[in-house]
Order: sequence, then C-alpha cells, then structure tokens
Amino acid sequence: SVNPDLASERQTASFSVEKLTALLDGGAEQMRVRRAVVEAIESDPVFSRENQYFQTQNERYEAAVKKAVHLQKKMHEMGWSENGPEYKYIYRALSGDVAFLLHRVFMRSISVLGSDKQIAKWIPLASQHKLIGSYAQTELGHGTYLQGLETTAVFDTATQEFILNTPKISAMKWWPGDMGRSATHTVVFAQLYVHGKCYGIHPFIVQIRSLQDHSLCPGITAGDIGPKMNFEHIDNGYLLLKNVRVPRENMLSKFCEVRPDGTYIRQGSQKINYFTMTTVRISLISDEVLTPLMKACTIAIRYSAVRRQSKLKPGEQEAKILDYQTQQEKLLPQLAAAYAFHFINDYLQELFNRGYREIQRKNFDMLPELHALSSGFKAMITQHCTAGVEICLRACGGHGYSLLSGLPSLYTKILASCIYEGENTILLLQTARFLIKCFMATRAGQPVPPSVTYLAAVKPGKCPAKNKLDFLRPDIYTEAYQHVAVRLTSSTAAKLQDLIQSGVKKHDAWNQCTVQLVQAAKAHCHYIAVKNFAETVEKLETKAGIQKIMKHLCDLFALHGIFSNTGAFLHDGYTSAAQMDMVTASYLDLLAVIRKDAVPLVDAFDFTDKSLNSALGSYDGQVYQRLYEWAQKSPTNQMSPAYEKYLKPLLHNTLSKL
Amino acid sequence: SVNPDLASERQTASFSVEKLTALLDGGAEQMRVRRAVVEAIESDPVFSRENQYFQTQNERYEAAVKKAVHLQKKMHEMGWSENGPEYKYIYRALSGDVAFLLHRVFMRSISVLGSDKQIAKWIPLASQHKLIGSYAQTELGHGTYLQGLETTAVFDTATQEFILNTPKISAMKWWPGDMGRSATHTVVFAQLYVHGKCYGIHPFIVQIRSLQDHSLCPGITAGDIGPKMNFEHIDNGYLLLKNVRVPRENMLSKFCEVRPDGTYIRQGSQKINYFTMTTVRISLISDEVLTPLMKACTIAIRYSAVRRQSKLKPGEQEAKILDYQTQQEKLLPQLAAAYAFHFINDYLQELFNRGYREIQRKNFDMLPELHALSSGFKAMITQHCTAGVEICLRACGGHGYSLLSGLPSLYTKILASCIYEGENTILLLQTARFLIKCFMATRAGQPVPPSVTYLAAVKPGKCPAKNKLDFLRPDIYTEAYQHVAVRLTSSTAAKLQDLIQSGVKKHDAWNQCTVQLVQAAKAHCHYIAVKNFAETVEKLETKAGIQKIMKHLCDLFALHGIFSNTGAFLHDGYTSAAQMDMVTASYLDLLAVIRKDAVPLVDAFDFTDKSLNSALGSYDGQVYQRLYEWAQKSPTNQMSPAYEKYLKPLLHNTLSKL
Repeated sequence: SVNPDLASERQTASFSVEKLTALLDGGAEQMRVRRAVVEAIESDPVFSRENQYFQTQNERYEAAVKKAVHLQKKMHEMGWSENGPEYKYIYRALSGDVAFLLHRVFMRSISVLGSDKQIAKWIPLASQHKLIGSYAQTELGHGTYLQGLETTAVFDTATQEFILNTPKISAMKWWPGDMGRSATHTVVFAQLYVHGKCYGIHPFIVQIRSLQDHSLCPGITAGDIGPKMNFEHIDNGYLLLKNVRVPRENMLSKFCEVRPDGTYIRQGSQKINYFTMTTVRISLISDEVLTPLMKACTIAIRYSAVRRQSKLKPGEQEAKILDYQTQQEKLLPQLAAAYAFHFINDYLQELFNRGYREIQRKNFDMLPELHALSSGFKAMITQHCTAGVEICLRACGGHGYSLLSGLPSLYTKILASCIYEGENTILLLQTARFLIKCFMATRAGQPVPPSVTYLAAVKPGKCPAKNKLDFLRPDIYTEAYQHVAVRLTSSTAAKLQDLIQSGVKKHDAWNQCTVQLVQAAKAHCHYIAVKNFAETVEKLETKAGIQKIMKHLCDLFALHGIFSNTGAFLHDGYTSAAQMDMVTASYLDLLAVIRKDAVPLVDAFDFTDKSLNSALGSYDGQVYQRLYEWAQKSPTNQMSPAYEKYLKPLLHNTLSKL
Repeated sequence: SVNPDLASERQTASFSVEKLTALLDGGAEQMRVRRAVVEAIESDPVFSRENQYFQTQNERYEAAVKKAVHLQKKMHEMGWSENGPEYKYIYRALSGDVAFLLHRVFMRSISVLGSDKQIAKWIPLASQHKLIGSYAQTELGHGTYLQGLETTAVFDTATQEFILNTPKISAMKWWPGDMGRSATHTVVFAQLYVHGKCYGIHPFIVQIRSLQDHSLCPGITAGDIGPKMNFEHIDNGYLLLKNVRVPRENMLSKFCEVRPDGTYIRQGSQKINYFTMTTVRISLISDEVLTPLMKACTIAIRYSAVRRQSKLKPGEQEAKILDYQTQQEKLLPQLAAAYAFHFINDYLQELFNRGYREIQRKNFDMLPELHALSSGFKAMITQHCTAGVEICLRACGGHGYSLLSGLPSLYTKILASCIYEGENTILLLQTARFLIKCFMATRAGQPVPPSVTYLAAVKPGKCPAKNKLDFLRPDIYTEAYQHVAVRLTSSTAAKLQDLIQSGVKKHDAWNQCTVQLVQAAKAHCHYIAVKNFAETVEKLETKAGIQKIMKHLCDLFALHGIFSNTGAFLHDGYTSAAQMDMVTASYLDLLAVIRKDAVPLVDAFDFTDKSLNSALGSYDGQVYQRLYEWAQKSPTNQMSPAYEKYLKPLLHNTLSKL
C-alpha cells in the first residue's frame, strides 16, 4: 500500500507521467524496449543487488564476476546483441554492478588501434572470452600527462621482440579495472624505443596471467590496489613488468609499425584517436552521471514528501519537509538540473553523431569544437551532478547517511566521475584554451565554429527586464548568460595579453590566468545548457502539459544559476541590484510552483524499486518499515566475538538487575 | 629518507614551525602534554589503526570495543584521569576510533538531569563499567523536532512504575550509539503521561540487556541499524519498547518529579539544559570538524608538493602540482579556513567559559547570544570544513579516491557533522531568528548583546579601497563583511514585515523568507570569523615571523570569502566592479605568497604519520612506495573463489599461450 502522503502528491500531477517518460526515453518504442530489458534483468536473481550494502569488497568482486559470466548466457537466451537496441539499457539495468567492463575497452582499443590482421586474431578470442582483457595506461606517477608515462618497450631486432619494463616504482601501472585479479591480457601503453631512439607512447598486447591456472606470467607482478571509496566490485589493479618480452606483432599497428629491421613507420591519421577519447567523455554522461543524479532526486524527493517534521503552522499536523522553502531550495534545482543535463546530453549525442559522419568523410573540421564541448560538458555535468547528489544526501538528514538509503553509494561512485576520463580542472582549461583562441579569431575577423560565434557579438548593453515576470522570459535570461560568458572570456583574454605585453612569459601568464579561465569555460557551458533547455522547451509545443512544466524547470535551472552566482551578473552592471531582487523573487516563486509536481517529475524517471535499491526512495514510500526490515538483515546483527572477549569480562561481578 | 621535493619546501619556511605549533596548542606546556599522550597511545599496538581500511563493519566494532576496554587500563597505568589535562588529547590521539562514547553521554545526562540520589546510585556503577550506558533520544520518525517524539511513559500509580512503549514503528529509537550491540542500559526520552495527561518529554533510565548473559530484557527489541557511510566502529542501534516497566525512581528528576500519588512537580530552572546542548555543539568543533580539515590539508598539500605532473615551462622538469594556480586556489583557502576556525574556536570556548560562570551565578542573560553563536558556528564550520575536506580529496585526483589516502574516510566521517547535533539549516534559522529579533530591537532603540551591536550601525557608505593593496587592510575587508551582514539581515527583516503587513500569516511569511534568512545567518558568522582572525593576528605582535604569515592567511580567508561570493558585496554598490577586480588581483597574488609556506603551515598542525594514516600524507612524502606496500596487504590480494567458480570454467578450452 502506498503511503497516503505520497499518493496525494501523485493525484495532482499537472501532466502525464507516462508521456514524459516516453519523451525522456526518446519515444514510446524505446521506452518499451528499456522496460523489457529492466524486467528481464531484475527478475533474474543472479543480478540481484539486494545484499549489496552488506557485502565486503571481496564479496562484491565475486558477485560482479558471477554477473558478468551470467550476462553472456542471458544475452544469448534473450537474443540481445552488443549492437542491438537493448544493449544500452543492460548496463543501466545492472546499475553498472558487473565485471569485465575493461574487457570491452580492451576490445575497442584493438578494433581502433590494431591492424586488420591483429583484429582478425584477437577480437574473436576476446568476444568468446577465451581471454580476459584489460587496458593498462595510467601509472602510479602519471595520469593526466600521458607523454610522461615511464613504462618502456625496447625493440630487440635479434629476437624480433619488444622488451617491456616498468623501470621505476612510479612507472607501475595503477588503476586499470579488471586487472587486479581477473585479466589474462592487457594493452600496455609504453614509450617505444628502437635503436636507442624514443618514439613516444605506443600500445602493446601483453599476456599477464596463465590461461591454464591463472598464475602470473614470468616477469609480471600484479595485484589489486585495495580499498577505494566505491567500485568495490571492480578489481582495479597494479602491474609491474620486468623484462617481459612480447613478439613484434603485439604492438598495435594501425597507425605505427616497427619493421623487422627496426624501421619505424607512421601511417594514416591519428586524429581519429582523439575523437575516441572525446566520445568516451560524452558517452559516460548518461549512465555514470545523469542516472545517479536522477536516482538521488527520486529518493530525496519521495522521502521529503513522506517525512514530516516540525510544524509549519501552529496547531496543525507536522509538515512534510518538502513544504519548507529551504528544502525546496535544496532539491528542486537538482531536479531542474537533471532535466537540463538530459537535454544537453541529447544535443551532444546528436552533435557527435554528426561529427562522426563528417570524420568518416575525412573532414576533421569539427574536431576542435567537439573536443572543447566534450571536455567542458564532461567537467560541468560531473561537477554539478556530484554536488547535486551530495545535496540530496544531506537533505535526507540522518536517514540519508545510512547506506540503506542508497544515497551514500550514489555519491561515492559519482564522485569518481570528476576525476576519471580527464580531471575536471584540466578539461575546463582545454575548453578555455579553445575559447580564447576563438575569441582572438573573432577579433581578427576570422570565422569560428557555431557554438562560439556568440563571442563575436559583444554588446555592452543592459538587461532589459522591468519586473520579476520578465525573468521568466528565456530570451532575457539566455542573453544574460551569454553576456557573462562573453565578458569572462574577453576579460581573461585581455589579462592574458596584458601580462604577456608586460614581459611575463607566455606559460607563466597562462598559469596566472587559470583560475579565471576555468570560470570562463564554466560560463560558456552554462550558457549553452540554458540556451539548449530553452530551445528544447520551445519545440514541445505539441505537448502542452509537458511543455508547461518543462518551461518551469528551464526557468528554475536558469534562475538558480543566476541566484547562486549573482556577482557574475552584477559585475559590470549588466544586471542591476533591483533586477537581481526580481530574479530572487521569481526564483523563490518558482520553487513553490514546481514543488506541486515534484513527485510526478521524479516518477517520470521511471526507476524501479530494485534499481533504486533505497529504503527511502521506493515507489510506495514505506520508509520506516523498510529501514527496519533491511537493518535486521545486516551482518552487524549477528553475535560479535566482542561480547565474550571484552564485554563479559568487563561487566562481570555486577548484579543481574540494578 | 624524506622525498627531496618535500624537504626543499621545509628549508625555506618563513617562520618557526615549532613556535606555531605551540601557539596552536595554547602554549609549550600543553604541546608537551599532547605529544606525550600521542606517544603513549601510538606506541601501544592495541590502539593501532594500521589495518582500518581493510576491516569490515564487524571487525571495526570489535576493535573499537577492545580499544575502549584497553583504554581504561591504559588511563590507570598512565595516571590519566577524565578531569586531567591529558583527557582532551586522548580522544584526538585515538582519532575517535573507540567505543563507549555514548556511555559518557549517559553519565553526563544523569549528572545534569538526575537528582542527587540518582547520581549517587548510577554514576559509580557507570564509572566502574558495571553497566554500559547509551542515550536514546532520536526516533525513526523524529530527530530535529523533539516535541514530536512518540515514545510514551505512562505512570502506573498501583505499581509505582512507568510503563514505556514505542507505540508505532516511527517511534522506534534509531541511531543511538553503543546501543545496537553493547549497551546494557540507556536513557530513554519519552512523553510522560500521568492520569491521562501528557507532560511532555522526560528522561528515563531503562535496562535493555541482561548483565548476566547480555540477552535482551523482556519487552525489549534491539539491534544494530546496519551499514552507514562511516562510523563502522560504532554500533548505532534501534530499540523497540513493549510495556517495559521501570520503577518511579528511574525518571531523572532534578527538574521534574512524579510523586507516588501521581502529582507532577516541576522544580528549578531548565535553562541550564539548553546550555548543555549549546556547549556540545561548540565542543565537537575541535575534534570532529577542525582536526579532519587540518588532516586533509596536511595530506593534500604534502602530496601536491611531491606529485609532479605536466610541464609548467616547456623543456623543464614536470612541475609540482602545488605550483599550478588552480591547485593553489583549491587548497590554500582550505588551509586559511583551518586557521581561521581554530581561532574562532578559541574565541567561542572562552565565551562559553564566561557564560558558564555567569550561569553559575544564576545570570542567564548570555544564553540567547550563546545559543545563536553556537548554532550558527556549528553550521558554518561543519559546512565549510566538510566542503574543504572534499576539495582536498578531489585535488589529489585518483590517489585521493583510494581509501589508503585517508581522505575518503575523513570525508565520509566529517559529513555526518552537518547532520548530527542539530541539522545545519535548522541551526542557521535559529541564528537568523536571533538576528531578526536583535535587529528589530536596535530599531526600537533597545540594547542588544555584544556580538550583534553592529546591526545598529547601518552605514550606507561605499568601500573606501583605492587599489589592490587596500584590500590587504583588515579594517577594509572586515567592514565589507559587516556591511553585507547588516544588509542581508535588514533586507530580510524588511521582506518579512512587508509580507506580514500585506496579510500573509506570520508562519507563512517566515517560511517564505527562510532561504534569505539562512544567507543572513551565514553572513553574520562569516563576519565574526573574519573580525576575530584579524584581531587575533593583531595580538601576535611579539611573534613577528608568525604574525606575518598569519596575516597572509587572514587576508586570504577574507578575500577568498569575497571572491567566492562577489554578488553579496557588489549588490548595493558598497563594492564597485573595479574594486572587485582589485580583490581578485590581491587574492590571486596571495596564493603565490602563501604557497611558499604551505608545507611548513601544515607541518605546524603536528600530525604524526600514524594519526594521519595516509599513504599520501606522510612526513617523508614517500607516496608511491607506501601505496604499493599498503595495497599488497589488502584482503583483495588473497585468492578469490571467483576464479574456480566462474573464471576457470569461462576460460577453459583456450590455449595456454596465445
């Protein structure tokens, strides 16, 4: 039975939840396929996450391997293929709680970097799981700066082999998933040396464990890097190489080859490689970043509709905490951001599909823009969503702090997304470099890519809003965001030039501007996200109910951004103090409006109870009952040796009843 | 051997680290005592935290009980007493990793709320550990709003007993520490009913487990609430009461008593109770909040001096990441905040000692101010320090995400401080209520407590700074903070009055202002923190070297606050855009200045390697070696059943060497 406090929230929805879900899925057919996959996965007990919060790192790893092996069987049974429409829903349905994800990266790297002959040899073995692959790039001493990797691969003409070494402790491979305990093979990135000359980083296929008994191969030292903040199910590993020899054929050689005599040949374009890195950053947004935020919003908002605490009006019943303005101000902007990022993700996916088609036609013109957008949005979205999950956790008070709420593990996992696939600050500086370059180009009258043409249009004007309702006009707030993005880019470009003209060396000048460059990159992405949300809402004209609530969310997303960063908009007087008070008034008004649809808006994310795995967030809102039932299953409710060993001796000699 | 990159940082310290440590300790003698305690605790293998990151929740609990029992023996051996000068260092030396903390709260509550007779009976039993106590206040359904607690205690005149019940699932006691598995007794807070009339919440001593065999007493259901984000060592528990009878004498009756005939008598003043809650909030700041931030700064700054990544200048060696402006901008403001909060903590401790003396003289005048300050600063400092620890964690990239860095557990533990002992938003609203009241009083010409007299002095002027150096003048920035605090309080008070005058009911009007009230309370605390830091620096005139670096940190703390919240200062034109650019320039300049002393500044916190328990933060900076050694000890490097069960069957039929 549904908690009446939650049921009442659903009765007054201003729109059709089912239709909004279909919109988010990209259509009714996709929704159907997704639900079928979720149903098939969740009805299979092997994929259960029921005991997840009680398991040790060892147990989590074992379960993830079991699931990965079972998944092969399941896919065969269900007729799902890696290229089929179901595939993208499988990982999400498993909540990523499965092993061998790096095996897929191993295969992808061979497909992209290997010669036809290498592909023909390795891909069938890998796809039949006759080996388990990993991907060994990051080292103890190097992550961000790939050129600095210290692992070496020296070509020995006599034996036609590469000799691989990790010559210093900092060269040890560190972090690769599936490598700590599972992998038999890996792709090692190493500095290639031929006849004493270094040719830079190249990829080599290296066997690390016996296929007979899984023992480490000669020259290999490998293991698990131990406990992490999350990812207990993944065996992130370390790898030391001591004179490990691999045949010449094991260097992946689509773009570079070492001939038997040691001649080094570079062929084809490497640009496509950068594009791969770029697409990975976009592809992780949906599953690794947006889904956790949507889950956190679902949990926190349902809980806030059920939890009653303190009285809002004297003499009445205790109030739902969702009725407090401060609680709305914590949660509803996160909900609006989840929708904003869902739509910007659609935009980026479309842009990248177009980019991919262009690249297949050997047109690489879009690459710099795509790189800048993927870097900036990866950083911006991971940053916002991580902060959003944390806000949801804290907004649930003590119960949010229990693992059983599901929120701590959402947080500890999403946090990693700020670090992996490019550390966020580094990525924002990549975007900033692109912005500065394009800004200078516009000043010189040169053409720039579409997403940055706005940089050419520096209008020194003022915000034309006359009352608080004007701030519900997308043209008004989008222009304000644009103005700030232009101002931050142009003022930082000016500072950079001033420093250089005053004699500061270029790299020092750049370093002295980086704090402001990061601000400019964020403002650029924020502007595009707001603009895209507003444009998306406009296109919903045939869906009146949905359009109306999406318009409210778009307004909230935009005004929250202004309210949280008023200085950027006030700085040069574009927005006046009186206008900022209008923003605040409209923003606070919106909270009360959206609050009415808050539960239907999270229901539309369509998470099953199993996928949320949360005592606070279930569809029926039976929070206390579930917390109590789940807690009783905890291993901490078994007898502890601490009683016999320490408590009993301490308490001895006391009366049986005081 | 110390990593040369770290050694070089220490050679150029601008001040004496030893003298700064003594200053932080409150004198050379306190420093000596602290170090002696740390040495005694850390040399005792029972107190080792070496394997902490590899232990399960059950193992952590068992170890914490073992430590608690051993601590009694140790204190006896060492001649340490609970009232001695060593006591405050013991808990810190243990990093809080010990059981029976609620036993102390149990004793304190009896001392404060019990009659002389009750104290005489229970305190000796508790201090000799003839029982283990807990403190059962929070329920599944109620934390913040104590009046809403649902547990009942009905007086039965016939048997002279109270009958205790948790009548609904939401009434179940939930969270009390030491209660899940250890406690034999607890203080239960319940609604007192006599002859059908409710007298509100009162405390009752209830035995929950047998002293013979630790089995649950009749009518008691209790256990552990399961896994949490941290606090694995504590058995936070649940408790159901079904017709549990306790004698009339078990109601703690210093202030209220039920006579044998059921007559209810209230005696003495209860104000002292609120004072106790207030002091708890202040007392947790040092150990639970400041120490973790100081540890996180130590780890992240030492690591940033050792980690080299990418090149700052072409052709040179890779740069220490501490040399990047963006890294400085992440870490150094946290360092400055750690010092700022250390000094405000001194200020609060002194104020509370004075308050305590006044209260002993039956003068309760200071209570409202003390309540407002303790609430506001508890919220402000826990909020800032939690965010600071997270920034330190992220700033260490992938290695910060490993539990072995020590940073994840610092974060997951400090996060709870935002929730316990008063949820932060609720507390800030308490402070805001005091501010509004005092503001209205000043308008009416009435006197107000010292910390808020500034509210009377509304000067509409402008910031007088003329160049960026002016923003290194404490009078300039302190006044700017004061101005913002007054503006936010007065404008919110005006909004509140406007709403009420326009017919909105008082409680609705309050709710509609709460987002802005929270801002006002934060601005008030920030202003006092800045002012206090500046005054502290001024008093260091006899310690020139230390005064100089503390002045830099004070400036950084102040300017970081402005730089991160420019809108508040720009809003009414008190600070102009040109002045804000000066703030930015001075702020960024300061980063480069303080960076030079960053390592000595964290060395002065004087944490031993054992207390940091971090592979990244050790004094010698041998990061990679330690990560590798520690990882090898992880239980994830033992054989997993996953190989025999799943991997071997999967890999069968393959070649031994591909």
